[in-house]
Amino acid sequence: MRLFQQLTRRTALTGLANPRLSSQIPSTRLWQRNFGATAAAAQQAALDASKLEITKTSTPKELTPNNELVFGATFTDHMLSIEWTAKDGWQTPQIVPYQNLSLDPSTCVFHYAFECFEGMKAYKDNNGGTRLFRPNKNMERLNKSSARIALPTFDGEALTKLIGEFVKLDDRFIPNARGYSLYLRPTMIGTQKTLGVGPPGSALLFVIASPVGPYYPTGFKAISLEATDYAVRAWPGGVGDKKLGANYAPCILPQLEAASRGFQQNLWLFGEEEYVTEVGTMNLFIAIKNKETGKKELITAPLDGTILEGVTRDSVLTLARERLIPQGWDISERKIRMADVAQAAEEGRLIEVFGAGTAAIVSPVRNISYRGKMVDCGLKETEEAGEIALQMKNWIEGIQYGDENNDWSVVI
Amino acid sequence: MRLFQQLTRRTALTGLANPRLSSQIPSTRLWQRNFGATAAAAQQAALDASKLEITKTSTPKELTPNNELVFGATFTDHMLSIEWTAKDGWQTPQIVPYQNLSLDPSTCVFHYAFECFEGMKAYKDNNGGTRLFRPNKNMERLNKSSARIALPTFDGEALTKLIGEFVKLDDRFIPNARGYSLYLRPTMIGTQKTLGVGPPGSALLFVIASPVGPYYPTGFKAISLEATDYAVRAWPGGVGDKKLGANYAPCILPQLEAASRGFQQNLWLFGEEEYVTEVGTMNLFIAIKNKETGKKELITAPLDGTILEGVTRDSVLTLARERLIPQGWDISERKIRMADVAQAAEEGRLIEVFGAGTAAIVSPVRNISYRGKMVDCGLKETEEAGEIALQMKNWIEGIQYGDENNDWSVVI
Repeated sequence: MRLFQQLTRRTALTGLANPRLSSQIPSTRLWQRNFGATAAAAQQAALDASKLEITKTSTPKELTPNNELVFGATFTDHMLSIEWTAKDGWQTPQIVPYQNLSLDPSTCVFHYAFECFEGMKAYKDNNGGTRLFRPNKNMERLNKSSARIALPTFDGEALTKLIGEFVKLDDRFIPNARGYSLYLRPTMIGTQKTLGVGPPGSALLFVIASPVGPYYPTGFKAISLEATDYAVRAWPGGVGDKKLGANYAPCILPQLEAASRGFQQNLWLFGEEEYVTEVGTMNLFIAIKNKETGKKELITAPLDGTILEGVTRDSVLTLARERLIPQGWDISERKIRMADVAQAAEEGRLIEVFGAGTAAIVSPVRNISYRGKMVDCGLKETEEAGEIALQMKNWIEGIQYGDENNDWSVVI
Repeated sequence: MRLFQQLTRRTALTGLANPRLSSQIPSTRLWQRNFGATAAAAQQAALDASKLEITKTSTPKELTPNNELVFGATFTDHMLSIEWTAKDGWQTPQIVPYQNLSLDPSTCVFHYAFECFEGMKAYKDNNGGTRLFRPNKNMERLNKSSARIALPTFDGEALTKLIGEFVKLDDRFIPNARGYSLYLRPTMIGTQKTLGVGPPGSALLFVIASPVGPYYPTGFKAISLEATDYAVRAWPGGVGDKKLGANYAPCILPQLEAASRGFQQNLWLFGEEEYVTEVGTMNLFIAIKNKETGKKELITAPLDGTILEGVTRDSVLTLARERLIPQGWDISERKIRMADVAQAAEEGRLIEVFGAGTAAIVSPVRNISYRGKMVDCGLKETEEAGEIALQMKNWIEGIQYGDENNDWSVVI
């Protein structure tokens, strides 16, 4: 058996035998580009917000009336667009009229899912100012997602500044009403025009914006979930904790399965233990009376690589630690089995359950179908939300719209 | 606790609370579209090859010399393009000049990885005829991939016929030399222009073609693999057995990690048992002398949902059963632990190891880095391929180029 180092030297001499990689840039340079501050990386241009060029539309759109807004269906006049190449780094940031992307059919985003995104919102405050909510968290996560699929990383503050300029330009699209906002969709795609499976040599970072109304226009509507045990969303060592396109298309069928039986979302369980992980496209929170401690406990799944690192999840946890612990609550990031949730319900210890995400902030759960039985999540027949869910929505919305002064809310 | 049926009725009355789904087509119809021969589905047009419309290019490309061909880097004059909508089904198939796709930046393929593809080849035989290799297998798999991510299915024979027309039109791009072929890339993408996470209401099926040379232009070059234990490609209940874009982008980093240490590909292990699954973008075959039976055994991982159902894998298995069993071999689709492969090597029982895929047919493996040691895969220093790998390449190539009469090879 040869020694490892001998082999490394030997293959370094013969080079890469795989033409799918060697036909592109030498792999070591590609590796360095993504992971180290090397000489090669230093020659690439960083994302520079001061270079922004703006081309205004000559055909401004008509605004959609607030009551006709549909999530992600209409967009503003412009878009932010920044190209990147492995050779030169980040190009001049451009704000241009909202327009189609024209891409060669061999572009790697169509074949190998080189794509990741963020969801964030801009809000109008009571003084007519415009605010973003914790944009640094979105920038941090987009960089993590991008690096995981060999797409470029960028300076988060620079992109936040550029997004601010974009939002200011399309300011008239932000509905000035409580619960309304401008949904922002930063997206990164690989644009290399070859079918070889390798790290993209070019990419496009773009941001589009869609005015949106409240998730629950007429007040909360508690949802019913179906626990999914026949399909798995994420696993240890996989990419379920990144906001990749790859994590979404495979989730539609289980969602449709649940919908065909009358459930609004599916609840992803994991492993033989059937740990509760996520619900549809949200993180999940479970409030129980803990049997052992006798205390009230707010539980969500830990970030073990199978859970999306939700910004709303983090916000709920932070506020809960700050404001619920003094009221006697325990706040836990821990694994909980679905069977334990069902048992808590049977014993009258399940206080409430809610999803957490950017779209709805919180989404109260009425019940969960699990192994042919319905687990009642503690709401009264006449209630559409529990106390904690309501409280969280009010706290977070208060910060988002600037009623409460908080570092999380950034005026642009 | 409410009974399941009561709840189903109750939520059916209130409808879907999730605006991201309810803003589109009612979910039950979407479900039926993909999974049942319902009244709604019957109204949608099937894919009809007889309706093909052809628009020829006015600027034919120059051919790339054979020795300058790079996999998937240059394409033929035309492309096949077929649109689909949930309302009307499959539209008129079109062969048009090779051209960019123009897509709204909100198109779901960019955000949620609604994309799947196939890899297949057209070959020139000794009589000047053009042949496809087992196209029915590719059509079957593309339909499985598509259905798994809520994209439409289609009549495989109709698409094969259309691909045949496309290949005949661009016939001059097929290099007339052994080992050369026209690589075909059928691709399906979701084209719905909204950011709601739901089943796409429209899709595009397109086929592009790239002339390619032999994977090993100067004869086999045995590769070195690095066993990956820190990242996991697929999971039971996941989508690792489908040819989805989603399965590719997350594999690049482990591939680059391996390349940075001088290995051509990474080898995916699974679970605590470290079962051998796939190598890079190929299935893996291991030939050992079985300790218990004393017989020679050709082993590949079983189709348990974590393995891509390779067409070459199936071809190797079929030929091995037909032609190697009479020579005293056992042919096994079974799980094998990496530790058992290493042990076979140590005991001099590892005969040879090779990858199998459309690009290279077979790809001999010299050694595998595993837990800091090198597992020698049985080749002599002067050898670049084992006996079985060589045999398989000759058998399969003989069928592909029509030297041997076989139903697998389809003249178009």
